[in-house]
Amino acid sequence: MTLNESFFSIQQVAPLWHSTLGIERETLRVQPDGTISSYPHRKDWGTRNHQPYIQTDFAESQVEIITPPEYTADHLMSWLKAAHQIVSEDIVEEQDLLWPFSMPACIPTDTTKIKIAQLTNQKEYAYREGLARLYGKHVQLISGIHYNFQLNPDVIEANYQQHGGQESFIDYHNETYMHLVRNYFRYRWFLTYFLGASPYVAENYSTNFYGKPHQIPMRSIRQSRYGYQNKETVVMDYTDLYSFVQTIEAALQRGDLHLEKELYRDVRLRGASPTRDLLKKGISYLEFRNIDINPYLPYGIDKETINFIRHFLISILFLEDDRQDNQVVEGHQMNYRIAEAHPLDACPFKEEALHIIQVMDRVNQELSLPYWPSKREYLIQALDQPELTLAGQIVTETPDSTDYLEMGLTLAQQHQQTMLEQPFLLHGFEDFELSTQDVLKEAIRRGIRVDIIDKQDNFLQLSYKDQQELVRNANMTRLDSLITYFSMENKVATKFILSQNNIRVPKGQNFNTFEAANAYYSLIQNTGLVIKPKNTNYGIGISIFVDKPNEKEYQESILLALAEDDTVIIEEYVKGTELRFYLQNHEVLGIVERQPAQVIGDGTSSIQQLIEKENQNPLRGVKHMAPMTTLELGSVEILQLKHQGLTVDSVPEAGQIVHLRENSNVSTGGISIDRTHDVHPSYIHLAQNAARALDAHFCGVDMIIEDYSVPADNHNYAIIEANYNPNITIHRHPGEGEPRLLGKAVLEELFPEAFS
Amino acid sequence: MTLNESFFSIQQVAPLWHSTLGIERETLRVQPDGTISSYPHRKDWGTRNHQPYIQTDFAESQVEIITPPEYTADHLMSWLKAAHQIVSEDIVEEQDLLWPFSMPACIPTDTTKIKIAQLTNQKEYAYREGLARLYGKHVQLISGIHYNFQLNPDVIEANYQQHGGQESFIDYHNETYMHLVRNYFRYRWFLTYFLGASPYVAENYSTNFYGKPHQIPMRSIRQSRYGYQNKETVVMDYTDLYSFVQTIEAALQRGDLHLEKELYRDVRLRGASPTRDLLKKGISYLEFRNIDINPYLPYGIDKETINFIRHFLISILFLEDDRQDNQVVEGHQMNYRIAEAHPLDACPFKEEALHIIQVMDRVNQELSLPYWPSKREYLIQALDQPELTLAGQIVTETPDSTDYLEMGLTLAQQHQQTMLEQPFLLHGFEDFELSTQDVLKEAIRRGIRVDIIDKQDNFLQLSYKDQQELVRNANMTRLDSLITYFSMENKVATKFILSQNNIRVPKGQNFNTFEAANAYYSLIQNTGLVIKPKNTNYGIGISIFVDKPNEKEYQESILLALAEDDTVIIEEYVKGTELRFYLQNHEVLGIVERQPAQVIGDGTSSIQQLIEKENQNPLRGVKHMAPMTTLELGSVEILQLKHQGLTVDSVPEAGQIVHLRENSNVSTGGISIDRTHDVHPSYIHLAQNAARALDAHFCGVDMIIEDYSVPADNHNYAIIEANYNPNITIHRHPGEGEPRLLGKAVLEELFPEAFS
Repeated sequence: MTLNESFFSIQQVAPLWHSTLGIERETLRVQPDGTISSYPHRKDWGTRNHQPYIQTDFAESQVEIITPPEYTADHLMSWLKAAHQIVSEDIVEEQDLLWPFSMPACIPTDTTKIKIAQLTNQKEYAYREGLARLYGKHVQLISGIHYNFQLNPDVIEANYQQHGGQESFIDYHNETYMHLVRNYFRYRWFLTYFLGASPYVAENYSTNFYGKPHQIPMRSIRQSRYGYQNKETVVMDYTDLYSFVQTIEAALQRGDLHLEKELYRDVRLRGASPTRDLLKKGISYLEFRNIDINPYLPYGIDKETINFIRHFLISILFLEDDRQDNQVVEGHQMNYRIAEAHPLDACPFKEEALHIIQVMDRVNQELSLPYWPSKREYLIQALDQPELTLAGQIVTETPDSTDYLEMGLTLAQQHQQTMLEQPFLLHGFEDFELSTQDVLKEAIRRGIRVDIIDKQDNFLQLSYKDQQELVRNANMTRLDSLITYFSMENKVATKFILSQNNIRVPKGQNFNTFEAANAYYSLIQNTGLVIKPKNTNYGIGISIFVDKPNEKEYQESILLALAEDDTVIIEEYVKGTELRFYLQNHEVLGIVERQPAQVIGDGTSSIQQLIEKENQNPLRGVKHMAPMTTLELGSVEILQLKHQGLTVDSVPEAGQIVHLRENSNVSTGGISIDRTHDVHPSYIHLAQNAARALDAHFCGVDMIIEDYSVPADNHNYAIIEANYNPNITIHRHPGEGEPRLLGKAVLEELFPEAFS
Repeated sequence: MTLNESFFSIQQVAPLWHSTLGIERETLRVQPDGTISSYPHRKDWGTRNHQPYIQTDFAESQVEIITPPEYTADHLMSWLKAAHQIVSEDIVEEQDLLWPFSMPACIPTDTTKIKIAQLTNQKEYAYREGLARLYGKHVQLISGIHYNFQLNPDVIEANYQQHGGQESFIDYHNETYMHLVRNYFRYRWFLTYFLGASPYVAENYSTNFYGKPHQIPMRSIRQSRYGYQNKETVVMDYTDLYSFVQTIEAALQRGDLHLEKELYRDVRLRGASPTRDLLKKGISYLEFRNIDINPYLPYGIDKETINFIRHFLISILFLEDDRQDNQVVEGHQMNYRIAEAHPLDACPFKEEALHIIQVMDRVNQELSLPYWPSKREYLIQALDQPELTLAGQIVTETPDSTDYLEMGLTLAQQHQQTMLEQPFLLHGFEDFELSTQDVLKEAIRRGIRVDIIDKQDNFLQLSYKDQQELVRNANMTRLDSLITYFSMENKVATKFILSQNNIRVPKGQNFNTFEAANAYYSLIQNTGLVIKPKNTNYGIGISIFVDKPNEKEYQESILLALAEDDTVIIEEYVKGTELRFYLQNHEVLGIVERQPAQVIGDGTSSIQQLIEKENQNPLRGVKHMAPMTTLELGSVEILQLKHQGLTVDSVPEAGQIVHLRENSNVSTGGISIDRTHDVHPSYIHLAQNAARALDAHFCGVDMIIEDYSVPADNHNYAIIEANYNPNITIHRHPGEGEPRLLGKAVLEELFPEAFS
């Protein structure tokens, strides 16, 4: 095997792998019977003039899901999963499904029912009208995967430094890309053989087969001469970029094309418009448009396929290139032959296929791609066993074209199930904290662009038109000041500020010595006490006395606290219900009551059984990964039961609430119950005053209230804490009660224009 | 011994100890020859209408230093030390000293030279003019300590709940205070015996001795009948508050007093004006005005004396009180007898003194005050040995009154030395970080009120008139946003934002796997590298290569970094000088160059000797407690010397710079050199752009610059970091060059009104 190293050296494979990728996936919205949906594109998805993720292609019902550029297949899959989840969640109301094949199974006989995408951009709308007139509407319903690829620019730059010679950098750069373009055209049949996946189409599509002879099934109708095609007089020359520019301009002059973008080829050169500008600005990236949708996959493509295509693209950089257009013409012929073959026909170009695999082997030597050994084995097998190819699998499973519709609908329903699972997560972004997932989801839904600055820190840049906003952990933004953050982070400061503003906080004092704290004892009225170190984690060093402790208990607790910090805080213990108020811009957008982990008896199940039952609640899951945490039966819970005279085998009466914990933290199984409309307005007023006193835009106010249905007075409540980064999830997906759309509220405030 | 527990029970001693105290100390500014200074009160101290700390009493040259209320003697001392330091630092320019005695040693024969305090408040000015007219100017020059005392209100409240009966709370509260007033008058002679300290006075003061017979020295001229006195017809009745109000109003009506505050008594009732309002509002605290200045102490009083007086005050609460005015009259007589005695006369009321000490013993049983055992011994001794009392000490040391002036000037100079030590610290507040000390100092100097919210966090509330500002660590304020903080705290975010704004940062990439990072190697030009974990402390996991490392070194460094964090950052190493730009509101207020710990040869000293010499630099001290850190000779330094072919005994040539460290951190002996006016404006512009990009109000921008005298281009600099809480001290007290008043700049921006 000889490698063509005139463009790249094999040592550059690793940085070439670090090239930029992007995916676009089109899909038709269909009704449960397979007919094209007549529901309009959702308003929730914002205006299509500024939506980077969820678009329409030709038809109003043809959703196009677009990823931003990324370096890894994992990241691309994250975007695909997220956008598919959002689309599915929104269209389920109208019973729409996402059609899983590239070719439609149902085309309305009345083509007026195929509605052109209702774009407000008049030029775009007119363009689609022109397409419908020229090529017919049927063929515009074809959906596919577009694979965007930008060669690592540092590699081209480095090569230019070494080999550039007299040529300008732009010319060198463009010629590098044209090399890839020519070789892609020449060798793309290889991808079509394995990934072609459009053997069937709606019966009435045949009326559009242009009168040419055909057989069904074929490997890929979409990539055959029966797919989307320009006039035969549209001939492009790919010898070099200059020739290409000349031929496209000639086709326009002749009237064979009306717009440059009407040119349908499997590779589109990206980076400037009109195409002539590429000569000056350089090709920015290539769009490979011929990938069929894999109907077995919920997102039409998967990580392995993304890497397989990337591997193929880098490998063909090292294949011969005579730098002439005839190799492109040859490639077209070969690809048609593969596409129009029966899916169960073996590969006619086995020798060349093995050569490509050999080059992919060589490339893999530099990369050690984990997927390759098994994939390689599969590819070689599938060359002789076409039933292993994607189209082969489809027709083996569904040999009769009349079952095409049913197969597609079954798959569409399965995929929808996948997309509707765990709605409290943003699929693909499960590593972010839950509140950030909510903001991310709403941003993608609304077409607010997301740049992930730092995943670990849940740090995002959001953009809409010219506006940019930085957001950390869902609601830490420019709207709060730095000192407001510290005012809430430091509990002594919080109390100082609230007291100064006449807001009731637990009465108490701080002491720096045992003696001073001890001296305070005789002054304490007959009241419960909390004795705690100024700073502590996980409740270490905190003693809680529901009634006034005796002197010995008091002293012991002080020593316990002083072992953790130089300062001990001695506060009254406030009795009542613990409520969290969520505020944005001094408005209370949600209130939840927090209760400890618990089960409710049914009169027949044991506590252990009740826990197992409750753990099937889809909102429960691993700590911090679900709105509620799986209940446990550890030593703390067993002790807590023991205090109530119960064991795991006790059978509580129907309706009896059994607490498994003392504390109400969500992370130990606690539940949140929405009380937004149940709490007396006087407490809402107090929470607002607290937020104002702290000058806090986003904040959580924790209040203990004796009876929240009774108006506040000077004794029946206290604010115990304020949080500068209040959790959204406990309101967004409460254990009980109505959800509050707080992630959306953050965005509505930051980007009013995106919601106007 | 019987205790009078009709007002308090002895069990309440501990919370009574937790009462609130405040100190006011007056002092005359004098010139080196002892004459009263004719320089006006400093403009730097702001307007006296709003200065809570530095005031004037009667005369323009009579400084009054005031502490806020505090619970501990330590805190009071902190305020006294700070204000004295500031006053001393500011008046040194005019060669003024602070006269250490209560009584002046020089009084100008021309009394027009005693200038009345130049207050803009017309009422206050007119009041002082009246005093001068009525009582003469001489007597108004007397200075003293006023001791403010508020009984712990919780104790009075608790007693009222238990014993209040029919009486109103205010009446009960006032009667409790009147008990203390009466007993203070009755027993204050005890304090005068031990603390009286004004035996001498200027010779020409005698013309003002009202023609009464007198002897000099006496224990306390200030507390004698020759001190400040109202007319003899001014007689007050302290039987109860109502009687007091009636007698003061009668004196006003008779014209014996012109204003209520003209009443001079050793106790002033505080909390309302006119006095009658105390009947409704209650006495808020008592001001004990008879304490003489201790000339041996720089601040006129010390911690032990503050606690001794507090101990005395709590003890006399348990002494008999016949609730009649005659005990007050008796007390006046006893106090005059003590005050007017020769300082070497023994105590005439020894039995009563021992009784008071017994009660103080009983009180101490509840408190175990560490100072008491030795103090008690001293007190008992001093009853028989008057030379041990303060006045006794003074006259023993300076038996001749003609030496009075010299003694005072010597002490004044000693005290000034103490106050001028370590000017980079705010005396009394050395526990705060240095930048906060600078802000605190400027706030006190300017009369901006300071409330310490949390010392550990360097968290302050500053107030001027109605405006309040929270400040943490000197320059974290409401002027910066929360997200700006995170943008600088997260280094990946900082680079993201700066790059996006076309500001040069070290070129580089982040990788999540060894493979990806390794793949990058072939792309690296021939340049130095920094390979580091995304987050790290103390430089762990960071490798620096001044030139491009070989592949093995490269891989090892990646593994080292990935052992610390999931993400490795590979950046170009930028060569040049490291400069820190300090910005406020997008203006560069200071630039320093940072250099590693170093010594400069003199041609004769060894490195060890040079280090010892450099460590005598008064700016050097313990890490974080001084602007520069004491140089060390540890293993790192010795290794660094070895790399240069040197040992601790090498003798560098004159002018030769020997680096002891690689890193330039101040905490390891590094130095900062002011370069504010040396750096080319293009870099200042870049630092401003960076601050704007980060939306940062206060920030430090760290830039590496090849040659800072040459304009910036696209290659010769890089911004390596931005800091949201830039250190003030390295600019305020640089190792070399002009200091920049950055703490003051913070306040000028936050409180423009205080500087207008």
